[in-house]
Parts: sequence; C-alpha cells; structure tokens
Amino acid sequence: MHTVSPSGRGRWIPAPRVAAVMAAALAVVIGTPAARAATRHAWVAAVPATWNAVPNARDALHGARFDPAATTFPTVVYRRYTRNWKQPVRRAYEAGAAAGRFNGPLIRARVGDKLRIHFKNLDTLREAPHSMHFHGVEYEPSSDGIYLPLHSGKGGNVKPGQTFTYKLTAGPGSAGIWPYHDHSQSMEDSIAGGMYGALSIAGRDEQRADREFLVAFAGWHGFQTIDGRAFVGNTPVFRAKVGERVQWDVMAMGDEFHTFHVHGHRWRTPDGTPEDTRGLGPAESFRVSWKEDAPGTWLYHCHVETHMAAGMIGTYQVATAR
Amino acid sequence: MHTVSPSGRGRWIPAPRVAAVMAAALAVVIGTPAARAATRHAWVAAVPATWNAVPNARDALHGARFDPAATTFPTVVYRRYTRNWKQPVRRAYEAGAAAGRFNGPLIRARVGDKLRIHFKNLDTLREAPHSMHFHGVEYEPSSDGIYLPLHSGKGGNVKPGQTFTYKLTAGPGSAGIWPYHDHSQSMEDSIAGGMYGALSIAGRDEQRADREFLVAFAGWHGFQTIDGRAFVGNTPVFRAKVGERVQWDVMAMGDEFHTFHVHGHRWRTPDGTPEDTRGLGPAESFRVSWKEDAPGTWLYHCHVETHMAAGMIGTYQVATAR
Amino acid sequence: MHTVSPSGRGRWIPAPRVAAVMAAALAVVIGTPAARAATRHAWVAAVPATWNAVPNARDALHGARFDPAATTFPTVVYRRYTRNWKQPVRRAYEAGAAAGRFNGPLIRARVGDKLRIHFKNLDTLREAPHSMHFHGVEYEPSSDGIYLPLHSGKGGNVKPGQTFTYKLTAGPGSAGIWPYHDHSQSMEDSIAGGMYGALSIAGRDEQRADREFLVAFAGWHGFQTIDGRAFVGNTPVFRAKVGERVQWDVMAMGDEFHTFHVHGHRWRTPDGTPEDTRGLGPAESFRVSWKEDAPGTWLYHCHVETHMAAGMIGTYQVATAR
Repeated sequence: MHTVSPSGRGRWIPAPRVAAVMAAALAVVIGTPAARAATRHAWVAAVPATWNAVPNARDALHGARFDPAATTFPTVVYRRYTRNWKQPVRRAYEAGAAAGRFNGPLIRARVGDKLRIHFKNLDTLREAPHSMHFHGVEYEPSSDGIYLPLHSGKGGNVKPGQTFTYKLTAGPGSAGIWPYHDHSQSMEDSIAGGMYGALSIAGRDEQRADREFLVAFAGWHGFQTIDGRAFVGNTPVFRAKVGERVQWDVMAMGDEFHTFHVHGHRWRTPDGTPEDTRGLGPAESFRVSWKEDAPGTWLYHCHVETHMAAGMIGTYQVATAR
Repeated sequence: MHTVSPSGRGRWIPAPRVAAVMAAALAVVIGTPAARAATRHAWVAAVPATWNAVPNARDALHGARFDPAATTFPTVVYRRYTRNWKQPVRRAYEAGAAAGRFNGPLIRARVGDKLRIHFKNLDTLREAPHSMHFHGVEYEPSSDGIYLPLHSGKGGNVKPGQTFTYKLTAGPGSAGIWPYHDHSQSMEDSIAGGMYGALSIAGRDEQRADREFLVAFAGWHGFQTIDGRAFVGNTPVFRAKVGERVQWDVMAMGDEFHTFHVHGHRWRTPDGTPEDTRGLGPAESFRVSWKEDAPGTWLYHCHVETHMAAGMIGTYQVATAR
Repeated sequence: MHTVSPSGRGRWIPAPRVAAVMAAALAVVIGTPAARAATRHAWVAAVPATWNAVPNARDALHGARFDPAATTFPTVVYRRYTRNWKQPVRRAYEAGAAAGRFNGPLIRARVGDKLRIHFKNLDTLREAPHSMHFHGVEYEPSSDGIYLPLHSGKGGNVKPGQTFTYKLTAGPGSAGIWPYHDHSQSMEDSIAGGMYGALSIAGRDEQRADREFLVAFAGWHGFQTIDGRAFVGNTPVFRAKVGERVQWDVMAMGDEFHTFHVHGHRWRTPDGTPEDTRGLGPAESFRVSWKEDAPGTWLYHCHVETHMAAGMIGTYQVATAR
C-alpha cells in the first residue's frame, strides 16, 4: 500500500522507533535527507481497469477527434493498496499527472533501504498469472519475479487470488529511476496492456529534487503513450517554478526505441556533454535534472516523428518565481 | 543570409566596432578563436526545390541503375539568403558536399553569441505554414517555433509570405552540433521532405577543427540518405589530409535509428571509451573528432544493413600530407 | 587457425624467441598479463554449414514446439582452421556456449599486438565472394575488407577458392570487444546468414577476467538469436562462481536495435552511472564487468519484448564458491 511504511492510511510501523521513522517519513515529504536506512513496505495488486488513452477525445495538434470506443480498452494494471490489500490508495506525489493512474505505483526508497513489496494477483479480467520483476535493486532469485520452468518459485507466476512478497535491497548501485514489470508467463500481454511502473531510488543522503516527473514511454493499442495517455491535453502536464530543481525520470517499455526531448532546456551527461534529446529502448531508464530558469509553456515529447504524431507529446509549464 | 553578420555579401554591420567585428569574422574564417561574443544574423527562407537523391542514377556497390523519375521529387527546404531575403546564397563552407544543398544552412556560432534567425516562408509548392525550431540553444517560448494551440505565437506557424525572427542565445551548454527543423502544423511532411539543418556551436575560445563534416541521416522517399543523397557517388565525399584535425558532426531526423561508422578510424567518448560506431535516433546529434593519421579512401555509413543497402553510405578520402 | 601463434595444433612459431612466445601464450591461457607485444596469427575460412537455431525444438517459456525443418537452414559462416587451412579447429575458450559454433572464431589479442588474419573463401554453397572487415583495430585500406569499385583490392572481394591475409594492429584505442563481418559484395546475405564474429582485445597489461561471455544479438530467419541460437535451452548457458570477475562482451549485427539486460545484477558506466540494461544497434559493441556475488540461476536477454518472445533470452548460472 505504501512506500514509506509509517505514512498514510493503513500504515504499518515496523517496531519501536516510531519517532525516528516518522521523522524519516516527514523528511521524504519535505525533501530533506533521511537519516537512516529503513525497511519500506508497499502493498500492490494486479487489478482490472478500463483505460482511455485519450480522455478528451482530441488530438489538439492535428485537430483530430476520436470515438472513445477507439481509445478505451479493458486491461490489467498495478495498483497501490493499503496494508493487506484492504483498499486501493494513491500517494500525494502520484495524484498529479506525473505518476498518473496508468503506471503502477511509484515506489520510492533510498540507497541502503530494504523493500518489501507485497503483491496480490486480483486479475479477474484475464485470470492469468502475474508477477513483479524489479530493475536496479538487489534480490535473491526467489524475488526475481520470473517465470522459468524448473527454476522459478511462486513469485515468478503468481496465480489469481494468490500473493507473494518480493524482498529487495537498494544497494550502492541502485540510485536512479528503474522500471518494474510483469515477468510471468503473461509478460507480453501484461506489458502491452500497461503492467509496469517505476522504482525511484535516491542516494542515502541525497536531497530530493523539488519536482519529480515520471515519463514512461510505451505503445498502447496503436497509440504512443506517456504514462498511458496520448496527445497534448491528455498526457501529463508537468509544472514547476523558476528556481526549483526539477528531475525527469524517463523509462520505456515494450518494443520500440524513443528519443526524449524537452523544449527550451538542456542538461549535461555525467561526463559533461550537453544534451536536449536522449534515446532509450525497452527497459532502459535515466534521470536528468536541472535548476529551472526558463519560464513559459514548453513541449516535451518523443522525437520519433511517427510517435509524436501518435500521441507521445505533452506540455511542461514553468511559472515565474513569486 | 549569413551567420557572422559582417562577412559576405549583404552584410549587416551592427554598429561602430567595425574593425573589431571584421577581425572576429576573419578569425572565424582562419580558424582562430573569436575574441568576443557577437550577435550573428542569418536570413533563411523555406523554398520549393526539386531534389534528386541519386543524381548519378547509380548504386555503384550493387551495380543498380535508377530512373531519375524514381529518385527526383518536389519538396520544400531551407535556404540561406542575403539580407532581407534579396537572393539565395551559399557559404564557402557549404559549397562542398559537407553541408550539401539539401539540408538547410549550417548556422555557426560560439558560446556567448546571440543569434537572430530571420525566417521567411516562401513555400509556393504546398502553401503550408512553416517554422524553425532549434535544438541546443536558449530562447524564450516566443522563439520556440512550435505550433501549439493557445500557446504558440506567430513564430510557431509562419504563414506563406510571412516572416519571423527567432532570437537565440548560445549558452554555456550549447557547444556542439544541434539540429533545427520545422515544428509548425506542417512538421511531419516538412521533416519527411527535408526541412532540417544544423547549428554548429564552438566553445568561446575553442580552436575550430581543420575539417568539419556534417552527416545528416534521414529517410527520404524510401531511400536512406546522408545530406539528402543516397549511394556512393552521390553522398558527400569528405576530404582531409594527414595531420589535420577532422570533426564529424552527426545528426538524425525522422523515424529511424542509425549507427554511424567510419572505416579505418576510432574515437573516444568523453569518458575515454574507444568507439568506431555510435547509435543515434531522431533529433539526437553528436560530434566526434580526431587528428587524421590514416591516408586512403575509406567508407563512412550507417551500419543498419538495410539502411546501408538503401544508400546511407559514402566515402572519406584522406590524402598524405605534402 | 589460431590467435596466439604458438599455441594449439598446427602452430606457427614466427622466429627465434620461442621460449618468450610460449610464455606469452601460457600467460593468455592462465590469465596473467602478457609481457610483450606479439604478432598473432589466425587462419579463418568461410565455409558452408547447416545451422539449427533451435536444436531442442522447444521454446520452453511459451511451451511451444518447432519442426526442425522450420529452424534449420544452410548458411555460410566463418570457421577457425589450423595453419594453411589444413583442418578446422576450435579453441578451448570457444568450446562452451560462450563463443558457440555459429559466430566466427573469437580472435583475442592485446593492445600493441599485430594480427595477421589469413582468410580463405571455401564457400561452396553460394559460391559468392566474401571478405573480413574488422572493427576497433588499425589497418591500411588494403586490409579494410570492403568491396568498393575502383578502390578495393583483392581483400575486399575474395573469390571462392582464393585467400587473403588481413594485417591489423591493436592500437591504444583498440581495447574492448569489436565485431568483424563480411563487407564484400555479398555483405547483406552474409550478415543475415551469420558471417560475423568478434575481436576481444585486452589492455597491454590488463588482467583478463575469470569468465568472458560473448553475447552476439542478431535476427536469423525470423528468430531473434544469441550466438545463433534461440530460446532458453538453446542459447548459451553462461556459468560463473561467486568471487569470480565476469565479463560480458555484447555486440549486435543486422538491422535491429536491442537492449541487453541481466537479472539480479547491475554494472556502472565509465562515468559511474549504474545500469542493468543497455541499448545497442547494428555493429555497436560494449564490455561490462563485475565481481560476481549473486548465486543462482538468472536470465539474460534482449528487453525488446518481441525479441525476447522470438528467442533472444538465455540463462546465467552462478554457483556458490566452494
């Protein structure tokens, strides 16, 4: 249900150090460094959903209109739940377009933390097995979430109605943004349908950015989507103010390669090379960041022309500082 | 019309410091560092053109011949003009195959410079709106060159017969090679037809290379082109001498990913890794450079097999030093 | 026939310093640094082969079975031979799945070495010309192995029954893994059929890894193969023990882009960024390495979903240290 165990409804406080853990949770909320490693719990379920990639029925840039029947499909997605999957919840930082409702929950941690991801398969649509496979973190084979005959345990092919807890560690090489996704026997259908999400892992003492944007590129029923939406007006509107440090967490899932571009801005690779466009393929992910200094309404998009035309484009709105 | 305002025909000398500016212009010509930041003007128009991607009608490597009717098409491209678009011109460094006639003008500047790109839409072929959107440089939203209903100004959708001046700054993160292209309502047709070019920005005090080669990868009417040409004998022949510092400026436009390879040579990434092949997708661009020490006739090409077979290959001729 | 001239059957000892050269050869075998540069000879031939990409006739992950007639095809590949092509041989380090029988011989050298690759065209299947073009190393145009009318010499289009010796140097920028492949008139058919291999070049005094795995991604008759095999149970099973330093040498050939992923592990780019997935396109190649600390059976695969489904996946088995 939640990432930092002691925050939000249904919280589970692991033991005696309530005050310290509350402080750590508060630190996450206010963006200051967490003082010590924690075990973070999240409850997640695979659930049926009816998803409309183009809820306003319009491609504003091309002046096209869509019949909702052509943009809405039943599917199965990951959802965050309260403890023991009592009820679905959404985190404050997932309420905006940044994390959206399509991607699975944004699971946040810090290097040194342990993660316990409690998964339940509530797929009543396809009644198929599912799993969770996590990139970027450390785990034993039993928590790999893969279907592999003779080798995979229960966590690789969780049957409908069943549960499994994945045990992960955010190690020294885990800082960054990482995808997670179904890797069970149903993997191909699941990923095509949207069963993926992201792990966002900060350094042990890293100051979180003021704004964190998740851009998940994926094809969906012929549309090219960002966080499950297509076309300006449907894709996330990311917002920041001049002076804030903004962070873009970019990932791709599926079959295609993309190039991430933001208008009016540049960033530098770790070796110092300036960029404003970067390519990535399926399951690749990266994080870029800058101190915002360019007010206005900007576009961000995949620069593959056919992908942009099929919806992989959105707006970024930067307000002047008050 | 021109990049460095005080050089060439139709020059516009901004103010009293003629001698200093002339010295700076001379510095650019002879390759020594420019002493101080400048405001550089260029006049560019979108004009109809009839383009033949295979002017010698041959694919020499496969022994194939083409009917010119199958390789020649009307299109719209960017052209450099003299001041106030009086007449089209070409720069000396665009006369060779390096920049070609297909791509828009190679616009050169240095970090710290301001750019004023005066654009006129002379598209009498499609009579469509057009614009210029620049990567790598700093600008306000009004100079973004995008079509975005409710947000974009006149510069995002310049109607036939109209003009717009884009105001750009080469900032500290602007050094390198960057694409520019149409981002108006006509964007998809325009880019498929060849409405793109490159900004080449040197460091403030950087010594320009002895040879600068622009390699623009793009599909065009089923051919895979470099600077608008397909097949050895049509694509640019780049030339250098042993001892010279050569620079390859590589970019891609359109829908496809490519891998740039040069025979007989290697270069290093900024982190020191040796390469002789590098991938890039639409709107990605990079610059690699080396001191030439390998005389002979070499191939350069995209290493995607079907792209090489469809024309994305040329020759690089290195003479021994005299 | 062989990489290090004085080892193996049919060895050719270049000159008087037999003891020193034998010591260098032994050094390669036992993984300690070679003391001095050597001239390394290899005899290679293009030969017909009948290849089955799915020898166990199964896709275990999807529970599918294949008729061998649908997975077996005649083709032409590179094979290592004894001196003067007397008979085919395989190196110890090629006997396992790591190098496979499909790819050409793994040619190993160190920075500073010279290579003499003696090639013979024994293609009695297509009776087509062939060649060898090497990435990453230094050579003169006569050893480029390219077909280019008016420019290429005999080495660019070696006719059936003929031979050619390519003269290469592993220079300071040659450390790493590099593809080689046919670049003659037959190039497209040859690469589609499997005429490619790898050069593995270590630093002058670099300690070789305990385990070296070659992962060559390529499409083949509709399958997506690793070292010429498709689906778990057919693709190479790589093996290591906890405490060993393992090295993954990854390359791609053909038309497609891939993303290399290993489960349960992460590595860092030279600039320090952690990764567990990296994209590459045709003729790109890279080497990643880590000290093994994660026992178990893991998957490695291309993360393009349709490629994984078409066979581009295998297992990596890590034993606990005894």
